[in-house]
Formats: sequence, C-alpha cells, structure tokens
Amino acid sequence: MPQYRRFTAEDAIQFANQHSELFGEHSKLTAVSFGDNHMNQVFRVKNQFNTSLIVKQALPFARGLSDRWPLTLDRSRIEAQALQNFAKAAPLLVVEVLHYDVDLAAMLLEDLDHLTLLSTALTEGRQFQQLGSQLAEFIVNAGFANSDFSLDLAAKKSKQIQFLNPEPLQISKDLLFNDPFSNNERNQIDASLYPLAQHIWLDEQLQAKVAALAASFRSKPQTLVHGDLNSSSIFATADQLKVIDAEFTGFGPFGLDAGLFIGSLMLHYCLAPALQPDQSKAKDQQNYLHNQIKLFWQQFQRQFLQICRQQCRDPLFGNELYQQQFVADVLRDLTGYAGCELIRQVIGTFRSPVLSTIKSPAMRLQVSQHALTLGQRLILQHQQVSSIDQLLSWLPTGSPQ
Amino acid sequence: MPQYRRFTAEDAIQFANQHSELFGEHSKLTAVSFGDNHMNQVFRVKNQFNTSLIVKQALPFARGLSDRWPLTLDRSRIEAQALQNFAKAAPLLVVEVLHYDVDLAAMLLEDLDHLTLLSTALTEGRQFQQLGSQLAEFIVNAGFANSDFSLDLAAKKSKQIQFLNPEPLQISKDLLFNDPFSNNERNQIDASLYPLAQHIWLDEQLQAKVAALAASFRSKPQTLVHGDLNSSSIFATADQLKVIDAEFTGFGPFGLDAGLFIGSLMLHYCLAPALQPDQSKAKDQQNYLHNQIKLFWQQFQRQFLQICRQQCRDPLFGNELYQQQFVADVLRDLTGYAGCELIRQVIGTFRSPVLSTIKSPAMRLQVSQHALTLGQRLILQHQQVSSIDQLLSWLPTGSPQ
Repeated sequence: MPQYRRFTAEDAIQFANQHSELFGEHSKLTAVSFGDNHMNQVFRVKNQFNTSLIVKQALPFARGLSDRWPLTLDRSRIEAQALQNFAKAAPLLVVEVLHYDVDLAAMLLEDLDHLTLLSTALTEGRQFQQLGSQLAEFIVNAGFANSDFSLDLAAKKSKQIQFLNPEPLQISKDLLFNDPFSNNERNQIDASLYPLAQHIWLDEQLQAKVAALAASFRSKPQTLVHGDLNSSSIFATADQLKVIDAEFTGFGPFGLDAGLFIGSLMLHYCLAPALQPDQSKAKDQQNYLHNQIKLFWQQFQRQFLQICRQQCRDPLFGNELYQQQFVADVLRDLTGYAGCELIRQVIGTFRSPVLSTIKSPAMRLQVSQHALTLGQRLILQHQQVSSIDQLLSWLPTGSPQ
Repeated sequence: MPQYRRFTAEDAIQFANQHSELFGEHSKLTAVSFGDNHMNQVFRVKNQFNTSLIVKQALPFARGLSDRWPLTLDRSRIEAQALQNFAKAAPLLVVEVLHYDVDLAAMLLEDLDHLTLLSTALTEGRQFQQLGSQLAEFIVNAGFANSDFSLDLAAKKSKQIQFLNPEPLQISKDLLFNDPFSNNERNQIDASLYPLAQHIWLDEQLQAKVAALAASFRSKPQTLVHGDLNSSSIFATADQLKVIDAEFTGFGPFGLDAGLFIGSLMLHYCLAPALQPDQSKAKDQQNYLHNQIKLFWQQFQRQFLQICRQQCRDPLFGNELYQQQFVADVLRDLTGYAGCELIRQVIGTFRSPVLSTIKSPAMRLQVSQHALTLGQRLILQHQQVSSIDQLLSWLPTGSPQ
C-alpha cells in the first residue's frame, strides 16, 4: 500500500501509466502541472500521439488560507465517489473517473481539453444553446437518484454516512453565508463598493434570510449536492457538457446546486456590458443568458415532475400535489442561493476573477452594484418567487456608462 | 465480554446487582417483569427494603409485528446514549441511566414508581400544573444543545453519526405518516369510523401536507429528537417530570417532539368527556389541558428565544429576527405533527388503548370524530398558524351525547 506523498510530474506520469490502458506500455509520456484551485494539484499527462488524461491529487491543506482551514484527504474519496455517483444518474454529463487511489488521494480522470471551462466561455461571449437544459437534466437526475423519492430511509442514511464531508462543507458555509455578509478581513472588496457592502452587513432583514438559507444548507439534506456548481465547475461545448470538481459534495437542499448555477449565470449577465465593448453584442449575450436561465427553470420543473411521476419509489411521496409543492419549494430555495452566490462573487473571499479584468473603475462599480442589488433582492424575496418571469423581471436593465 | 441472551428474571437481578451499589452485597433481590412495549423487556428489581431499580433490555425484533420490522440491538445503545445526552441538557427532566451494557443491549435505570405514567394520570383526570412548562424546558434545552445554534458543523455531523437510527425511524415514519393515511391492513379502526377514515385516505390535499411533514421528518435534521414524546413516554407527579424511552431517537425537525406531545394532550382533551361521566369535571379537565397546551406554547417560545440570546454560538444564527422566524417555523411544524399524532392515535396501527375502554359506541365514535377532525385541520392549516389562541380555537366544543 503506497503512502501519501505529494506527486511530482514524474509521479503523475507513473500513476497515469499504471492505471490506464490508454497509453500503451512503451509510450513516451509527459506531464504538465496546471490549475490552482487552492486544494489540489492537477497534471495533464500526454503520450506522443497527444492522447491525454488528467491526474488530480488532493493536498492536505487549503493553499493560501494558512492553517485556518485544514483539510483531510478523505475529501478526495468523497470527490471520486461523488463523481461516480453523479455519473450513474447522468452518465453523459459528468467527467469520467478512470481510477481512484485512496492512499495517494489521487484520481485519474478523462481529459476535457476539447471543451471549454464555462466561466471562460461566457466571459468570451460564447453561447452554448443546450446549457440550461443539460444542467437541468444533470441536477434533476442526480438529485432525484439520491433523494427521498428514490431511496428508502436506510439507503439514504448509509449514503449520508458515505458522503459526510464536514470540512469542505464548513468552508462552503463560511464562503457563501458568513464572509460576504459580515465585515470579514478575508473579503476582497473594491473601496468604491464599501458603502453598498456596509449596507448589506447592517441589513437585519437580509441577515435573517441568509441565516435561514445557511440553516437549510446545514439541516435540509434532501439530496446529494455538488456544492460548488457555478460556471467554474462546468466544461462545455456547443453540444457537450461535463460537470467536474466534486470536493464540496455532501447532502443538502435540492435547490443549492441550481441556485449556485443560476447565480453564476446572473453574474455573467451583469458582467456582459463591461466585458463586451460592442453594446449590441453585450445585449445579445444578456439575451442569451436570460433565455438559458428561463430554459433551465422550465426544464428543471418539467423534468423533475416527470421523473417523479415515472420513478418515485415511496407511495407517500407519489402524491402529485406534494411533488408540485416540493418543486416550488426547491425553486424558492434556488432563488435564495442564487442571491448568496451573486453577492459572494462580488465581495466574498474568492470573488470572481473576471471582475478584476474590468479596467474602468466606473464600469466595475456599476456591474458590481447591479450584481449586489440583484443578489439582495433574490435573498430578501426568495420566498415570494412563483414564476420564472417574475424572477427574470428583476434582472438589471439599462446600459452601463 | 458477555454475549447477548434474553434475560430471565434471575439475569436481571444479577445485572442490577453487578452494576449498582444501591443494593449492597447480601441483599435479597427480587425481579418482576412488567411493561410490554413491543420492542423491549423491562424488569423491576427490588431489595428487601423496597429499594428498586429498572432493568430494560432490547429484544432483537418487534413483538407482535412478525418479521416485518426486524430490529438491530444497536437501538439500545442509541437509547442509552440519547437519555444521557438529554440528561446533560435537562438533568432533572430525564430518567437516569445508571449503567449500560452494549453486548447485552441492557441498561440499568432509576425506578420512577413514585411517579405516574402521564397517559394513565390524564386518563384518570389528574392534573399536574407544571406539565406544560416542564416539557417546554425539556424540549428547548435538549433541542438547543443538539442544534446548529449550539454545535458547529463537524460536531453536529459526528452526533448525527452517533445517533443514526434507521430502523426505528422507518417504523416511526410508517406508524405516523404512512399507515393512518392509507387503507393499511395494520390499522385498527372501529367500523363506524370507516367513512371518516376513507375521507382521510382520499383527500389529496391532506396527503400532500402529510408527505411534506414526512419529508421534513426525514430530511430536516435540525436537532436530536426523542421521536416518541407522547403521554406514554413521560412520568410525572405534581412537581416532577421525567422523560423515558428514547429508542426512537434520531436527528429530525425541532417541532416533532413538541407536536407529538401537544397532539397527545389534544387527544386527552377530546377523550375527557367520554372518560369522565361527571361533565363538569370533564369540562374542568379540558380547561386544564387547554391551559397546559397554551403554557407549553408560550414557554417554548419564550425559553427558546432566551436560550438563543444567551448561548447561541454561531454569529450567523445570532440574528434575532432569524431566531423569531425559526421558532415560528418550529411552531408551524409542531402543529402539523400534532395533527398526525392525533390521527395515528385514533386509526393507526397502535391506536390509543384508552379508546377501547370507552364502552358506549356512540360516545367512542364522537370523541374519535372530534380527534380526527381536529387532526385534519391541524395538518391542512399548519402553515397558517401564527398564534396559540388561533390553534386553541380549533379544539372541539360542545358536549358529547
């Protein structure tokens, strides 16, 4: 049994070669380290024919955060098993895990270099027309398979043990609900945004809603959630979509992943006028995102009710009225979590790196204000949301300066 | 390490003598088996001076239910540890566990023979004036200590593992949410009640609300709940109260225990006119129960907010507006669970044995109807309840025939 050691490029090559038939015995392999997500190291291992695989290894700490958030390597097991769990429910929509080694906390993954990271693609103004429906399919299928609609109590409890993931969930809770809503030293905030941030920190009504969303995050284990499903955890092209990175997986509210996804699309909506100098193209990108949010919402609702009708295993939860009320509740949660994600991305500890690329301070201020204002509204009014058109009517209008 | 065997009276004596200093070395001990709660055997062990202790041993099956609900002995560990957990938060209000043996699935408990089982006392028309406030204190203190207000995420997760109790929770779910709301062969129903029972089984709106309450029972682990806290799990006198029997303990919604308790007081309210031939005394007993329900509700609200103000450990959940909204949500849950408990006690698998003692069929029908009608209203309208006076206005009025 190998002991944990931090991989060098040579180790990554050996690991990939040992656990994959892909390269053949005598191929010349190279490995390049890339990516920096604070918690892992990632290598792309290639043979001379450019066939490649990814080696991802968990680090025993969170980089750049000192010892504030120590991390056990068990999250690597959780990530591998979560990706496998999700892939079972939505095979085409999840990165494939080819091998996982518990002691080395390392996994071998298919390479997605023919796809683009969604956050990058959206920043560049690209448009994937199936985005909303593919994401809805992923969340509905994976969510349903791990929910009370599908699992009996004993099976669900045993999955809850399998995916106990307290450290990453504590980080999520801090990043999403604590830091952005208090004057935390970790927050990254443009000075010009301070007045608005302070307004957020002092709004008791808003804080109460955030506390309720955080409480649900901790004590509403409706299903297995990815936990970090924003545009940086998705690879896509015009016809393919793959979810990656599941180290924040755990049981939580059904609406969480959908909320993070919609929140991140809404951020791109707010950003579009600042990223795209041609304002008619910016408007076109906003229309695209508007339509994808609508598509997601409608497909989520439709597909969720359909899978419940077809596959619900518990007669008690087979009641269609209950299913409709359940999905309406999920969509209200979604709205609240989308609001938290928007605010986190603008004034949180790991705010969106895209924001820093906007050179004009006035422009940066305006799109940030749009995102924060929208985020607050989503949080404050999430319990009143009853239709997607209502939600979309809150998107900011008017051209930036 | 002793292997599990079913205790004889002699084994119970030996177990008590071995694990307690109470009796002295040469006392003459006797043991009497008593109680029959389908899942355990219980002995009272006495010395010649009438000092007594209780030996409770878990059985590896649920008596009278064939093999439909097999039970692991681990629930005995859960029960002992749960009673110890509750006693830490509310020392005077829980039966004391003197010793617990994991292999024999047996525990030694203080004897509560100087108190009366609450269900018996209420059936006899007795009144304990501190009942409502003592129960509120128990539920608030134990509930708070195991909640997100008090535990950080890692501590709560580890308690959730400690108290994983899938089999008993499955039984609870079946008994409380499935059986009474469907035409299940296990239900015990007076023939005269069939029309009303059928009405319940066919009411889609009601079923949807019950499904939502059952979903929260499964997927809203706000705190450690007793899980069976009706008048048969409480011993009392004028000044003392002790909670017993924690084999159904697990993490669940904060409002569950309170709901089962209030539901069982409401059942006694409905039963009073049938149990007490003197109708002015019956009315007096109803007034007593009315006042205790009100006292419980008010004290619960007051004490919960007080302990939150004084002891909340998480700044996010320190928001007072959130705490008020949380307690309002708990009280709405309470109302729904009280409704389920009422209906379960009248037409469920283990319906209230008191019902069978009412000789007059007309009288039995009428009190049963009162309880079922009230139960339905509590379930259907639980989300609209905003005050205790509103809730109490739903109690049946008018004398029975």
